[in-house]
Amino acid sequence: MTPNMEIICVGNELLIGKTLNTNSQWLSKRATAIGIAVKRVTVVADNVTEIASVVHEALQRKPRLIMTTGGLGPTFDDKTLEGIAKALNRKLEVNAKALQMVKEKYETYARERKTGKVELTQSRIKMATIPEKTEPISNPVGTAPAVKADLNGTILIALPGVPAEMEAIFEGNIEPLLKQASGDNSFHEKSMYADHIMESTLAPLIDKVIHDNPQVYVKSHPKGEENKPHIEIHFSFKGKEAESPEKILKKAMAQLSSLIEKSSGKIVGSA
Amino acid sequence: MTPNMEIICVGNELLIGKTLNTNSQWLSKRATAIGIAVKRVTVVADNVTEIASVVHEALQRKPRLIMTTGGLGPTFDDKTLEGIAKALNRKLEVNAKALQMVKEKYETYARERKTGKVELTQSRIKMATIPEKTEPISNPVGTAPAVKADLNGTILIALPGVPAEMEAIFEGNIEPLLKQASGDNSFHEKSMYADHIMESTLAPLIDKVIHDNPQVYVKSHPKGEENKPHIEIHFSFKGKEAESPEKILKKAMAQLSSLIEKSSGKIVGSA
Repeated sequence: MTPNMEIICVGNELLIGKTLNTNSQWLSKRATAIGIAVKRVTVVADNVTEIASVVHEALQRKPRLIMTTGGLGPTFDDKTLEGIAKALNRKLEVNAKALQMVKEKYETYARERKTGKVELTQSRIKMATIPEKTEPISNPVGTAPAVKADLNGTILIALPGVPAEMEAIFEGNIEPLLKQASGDNSFHEKSMYADHIMESTLAPLIDKVIHDNPQVYVKSHPKGEENKPHIEIHFSFKGKEAESPEKILKKAMAQLSSLIEKSSGKIVGSA
Repeated sequence: MTPNMEIICVGNELLIGKTLNTNSQWLSKRATAIGIAVKRVTVVADNVTEIASVVHEALQRKPRLIMTTGGLGPTFDDKTLEGIAKALNRKLEVNAKALQMVKEKYETYARERKTGKVELTQSRIKMATIPEKTEPISNPVGTAPAVKADLNGTILIALPGVPAEMEAIFEGNIEPLLKQASGDNSFHEKSMYADHIMESTLAPLIDKVIHDNPQVYVKSHPKGEENKPHIEIHFSFKGKEAESPEKILKKAMAQLSSLIEKSSGKIVGSA
């Protein structure tokens, strides 16, 4: 069975439209490629009560994985771990392993900048203050460790919001874990493009192809206008099959191409 | 009081990471500029049960506004209105006004393309099939009308997912409505950039500025690395004040600039 995942993105900058949420796209694409089904993405503010609600609600849906991004840094409004602690009804505590990670980072910085001894200020200790019974994951690019919790069948992972940090931790520590969770359930996709056929004319043709190819999901994405149609048609397929995924997708594409051409549409490319 | 809003984006393409969710950024930015507080963005699949759950949950939080994007078109997987109907426990029905809108579109297309008479196929009638006791909103760019429902203090608006269509409907029909809902509660923001100060060193300085300027929200966005810091500091302020918003933001920025320079940081720009 395909493992499910939810993504929770924390940050006022996302809710005021200052920042485009590239993190959720990046995580969704990587998880999908491994064979994980992303079921929901939720964006909330830097607010402990809101974060706690969203985490609590996600846990109740019992996904295999929950991944949060953002809110792990040193400032007052980095509140993700406080929100998670509240959702789990656990205390926050200075974690010895996390503190060691943070301390080593600042010692390295001090050596590189040739400044004197390192002061573990309150803001720095904050980054090592994580919910009890959770585990820090080292951050190879930035300072704040990620955090992992095993919760009754759900693995929750809190990642930083800075894209380079999130991506490095995901690739180094999370991806192998997800591959293990997903088995060999990989995702395959192809697109083709059609002109001179309106989406409303295309709709029943797609219905027919889906009926004849039940493993394949076909979705139209209009790129022009209904009246000057240029439509991307996306074919996707997940899982292990006796036949090759390439062959399965190509069969559905060939059938739809032929139906489109019979309706005076024109296939103008594929990818 | 600032009116709250939730955004619900429907589409498998968002959850597999095929499409970057620019719609939610665009809507968030526009709503924020008018003085609406976007509290949550949720992305779900093209699945009636999932859509119905998310709409139902959002309604229980009683925001002033809920805006959905995507899933209004003619294909089998355009399921947003079915999901909304399920959440509201209402039937779907062919709406006479919506059907007229759709019919006029296809008549115009037929005239432009010099084809014969218009056939109102099942896929086209689908776009005029909306929950009972809701109201269609004309789509100046595409075919599928948007839909508006007044629900016990919450206004729910279903917008198309094609960005040009969503934006045109928002600007023509929704923005005036939101302005009315928000009063004169506009949002003001400025940024400045600091080098040579680590985010963990900046954190307590921001605390001080927020303490002294309680109307202003200050958030740091690291753009470099903790050890080679380049940090955007974003100042924002919402609402009506006797003093000018410009003055209020500049006071907080001046105080933080001076604190940063005392800590050997350097302000390298503002916007």
